[in-house]
Amino acid sequence: MSDNDTQSAIDYAVAHREAFLSQFETFLRFPSVSTDPAFAEHLLAAADWLVEHMRSIGLENCRALASAGHPVVYGDWLHAGPDRPTVLVYAHYDVQPVDPITLWQTPPFEPTMRDGRLYARGVFDDKSNVILNLKAIESMLATSGALPVNVKLFFEGEEEIGSPNMASFVSDHAEGLSADVLLICDGSSPVDNPRITTATRGLVGGEVVVTGPTRDLHSGKFGGGIHNPAHMVGQIIAALHDNEGRVQIPGFYDNVRPLSPHARAGLLSLDEHTRQEHQAESGAPALWGAPEYAYVERVTAQPTCDVNGITSGYQGEGGKTIIPSQASFKVTMRLVPDQEPEDIELKFRKFISRFECDTLDIQVRMRAASPPAEILTEGPVIDAISDAFEATWGKRPILERSGGTIAIINMFADELKIPITIPGYTSGDAIHSPNEYLHLEGFFRSIGTAIHVFHNLARLTVGGE
Amino acid sequence: MSDNDTQSAIDYAVAHREAFLSQFETFLRFPSVSTDPAFAEHLLAAADWLVEHMRSIGLENCRALASAGHPVVYGDWLHAGPDRPTVLVYAHYDVQPVDPITLWQTPPFEPTMRDGRLYARGVFDDKSNVILNLKAIESMLATSGALPVNVKLFFEGEEEIGSPNMASFVSDHAEGLSADVLLICDGSSPVDNPRITTATRGLVGGEVVVTGPTRDLHSGKFGGGIHNPAHMVGQIIAALHDNEGRVQIPGFYDNVRPLSPHARAGLLSLDEHTRQEHQAESGAPALWGAPEYAYVERVTAQPTCDVNGITSGYQGEGGKTIIPSQASFKVTMRLVPDQEPEDIELKFRKFISRFECDTLDIQVRMRAASPPAEILTEGPVIDAISDAFEATWGKRPILERSGGTIAIINMFADELKIPITIPGYTSGDAIHSPNEYLHLEGFFRSIGTAIHVFHNLARLTVGGE
Repeated sequence: MSDNDTQSAIDYAVAHREAFLSQFETFLRFPSVSTDPAFAEHLLAAADWLVEHMRSIGLENCRALASAGHPVVYGDWLHAGPDRPTVLVYAHYDVQPVDPITLWQTPPFEPTMRDGRLYARGVFDDKSNVILNLKAIESMLATSGALPVNVKLFFEGEEEIGSPNMASFVSDHAEGLSADVLLICDGSSPVDNPRITTATRGLVGGEVVVTGPTRDLHSGKFGGGIHNPAHMVGQIIAALHDNEGRVQIPGFYDNVRPLSPHARAGLLSLDEHTRQEHQAESGAPALWGAPEYAYVERVTAQPTCDVNGITSGYQGEGGKTIIPSQASFKVTMRLVPDQEPEDIELKFRKFISRFECDTLDIQVRMRAASPPAEILTEGPVIDAISDAFEATWGKRPILERSGGTIAIINMFADELKIPITIPGYTSGDAIHSPNEYLHLEGFFRSIGTAIHVFHNLARLTVGGE
Repeated sequence: MSDNDTQSAIDYAVAHREAFLSQFETFLRFPSVSTDPAFAEHLLAAADWLVEHMRSIGLENCRALASAGHPVVYGDWLHAGPDRPTVLVYAHYDVQPVDPITLWQTPPFEPTMRDGRLYARGVFDDKSNVILNLKAIESMLATSGALPVNVKLFFEGEEEIGSPNMASFVSDHAEGLSADVLLICDGSSPVDNPRITTATRGLVGGEVVVTGPTRDLHSGKFGGGIHNPAHMVGQIIAALHDNEGRVQIPGFYDNVRPLSPHARAGLLSLDEHTRQEHQAESGAPALWGAPEYAYVERVTAQPTCDVNGITSGYQGEGGKTIIPSQASFKVTMRLVPDQEPEDIELKFRKFISRFECDTLDIQVRMRAASPPAEILTEGPVIDAISDAFEATWGKRPILERSGGTIAIINMFADELKIPITIPGYTSGDAIHSPNEYLHLEGFFRSIGTAIHVFHNLARLTVGGE
């Protein structure tokens, strides 16, 4: 495939923006919320639409593969020849819940344009990456009738719930998924500043449920005589951190591997930028955290523990004079090398057990866990993607650690043993929040970037980096 | 009015049980939830129904009197003559919210009989007291054409929200409400064990709202760098009590007046009974509280502080990896003599101010407050009611402190300066909780008790006890 072919494909993509946008909007209208069983049929519908769409642009073997949970959508094009590498592309079509729904300016599953931004749940995380890869492939197949590399597409439906069934799925399908490089298309870039992610954090999540009386009690009649589960939840949450945010679970930091001086210096060069970006994006009164680490270290290279939600008793308008029967909270811990999810889960459970008493029942329920990932920090794959960004965004990407978690990385790494990287194709904000949006211009530009990436990866030696 | 007249009235009440129950059920179907503005029209409808019903049984001057909030329903019968006392009867027709609605076995506003119990929101607290007083009056007027005393009925619509507009209302209507004795019909009795309440606790309630980022943030991207408001709510709640439940707000106990040795001895005689009742009713794994006080003292004679609800972040199925933008909790403190609501509110605010920081915004919103009340513990009114219970329940009532709060008491006490007491006419359970119910047999029996009470109060000297 020549540079001319690449340009033809990019021209095609530019000429078809309107149709691409309309197809993207159709895809966004599926409320594919993976965490809530009530939405299961919408995930099936989204998967079916994807399969049909992939077939229509010339991909082959397109199907929704059953997993123990929501299906994986698969398709491939394997006619580039045995001397060309095979590129496995990962993205996910499931999305986060939408609540608090009242804070959305427009309905989350009715995509809406405002000021060059497209608003919808999942528009940025991660349906943009599904669509832009498909549109890059369509543009190449429509103009050249071929792709510069062999391509396998793998679109997951359970990323937002920690990919509980993907380890066994990838293991079961390891042979079919064999490839020379894996692009995890679940990253992002600041507007006009392309980025490749070179580390992610692991994740352990769970819920603590404290139960006292069998029903809500009148706080006048019983107040002073019944242990209030909301008080216990307060006690536990308060004990999780010291006043500067250091996690107080005994042994939590034991296995944190210090950054190499080189990696730390690279990271610190991003501190001021990260501080400014986070201050502006968060709207928090001030940034926060243990002062012995730079801000950028705290949010990418240090482990964390955050309460994601608390529920207890009466939450409506006005007051209700009760001792609630139950109180619970959800928590996620982000892990860094060499913390292990099983070890941290054990330490968390041990920490919670300190609060056991004969007046309340305390239950811990843990969810799927992911270890922190090891991914590419340099080499020909990073170079190929960097060149693609330079050709389309006009600058080379920054290489940056992420504080987030992509559970699937380790499952692929363990089974496929191939180089993995995370190109930040799209820009936007408010993922997991109300009014999630995507910079549409950057999205269209990255269809071109993806075309270049496939083109550049053709230079890889087959059978390894 | 003779003993014969009393018996005729009781016979009438027995003969009309079916009609009485049907009218009671109609009244229960009004969802008169005072705390939620969405239910305001239902309170109006309930008030209108009451007015019409009171007119139909022969009461006079029946009307719904506008207040700054929900209306007061008033009616009277003042033809017993100037030598007979005037009895002011208080009850309330508003009810608590119904959530969690899923825990109700039958819908809260469709009254349902099971095993001699009538289930509905408000059936016990406090619509039973509204209806039984009306049915006692109807039975007397229908059989004798007269009442043994002058009667004024005052049915409030804001008791469950702390009677925020009643102080000014009672003050504005003090002349019209003048009477010789006030029966606060918002008490209760254990099944088959009549009770007169001789003390109640005061109440200060409010909400603490902690806000960090302007929206929920991705806990991977921002975790470790943004102060989580759910953590602060945990810290505050944890600091409210020590491990045995003593309230840690500085100065909270300063003005608690110790019980007299006589009052304490009386109270302690009820300890074992109260422990057993509370253990059985609460379903809690064990009773709880500061061991330097007997259980019955903790729940009636000591002040308390209870968190009534906590809200933050994601509360649905599964997990959501966010740092919530906001976390809040509702709290009520029960006060005993000589604690003053204004003083306790000030101390609470000062306590919360200790948590102020530059990374979070903390707001305190306090609601209507009630001081602890001083009510009758002995004398001719207590004797008159005790005799009525003995005549109908077969035993004299126990005189007991309540841990609950009846805000209206002090408003009446301050304005009217008349003796006040709280007869426990009805028995039931689960007030403020799902599956609230009333013992129906006891309810019918207490229509007779109320007839005797009106009869016995005729012996009071007019112009004071």
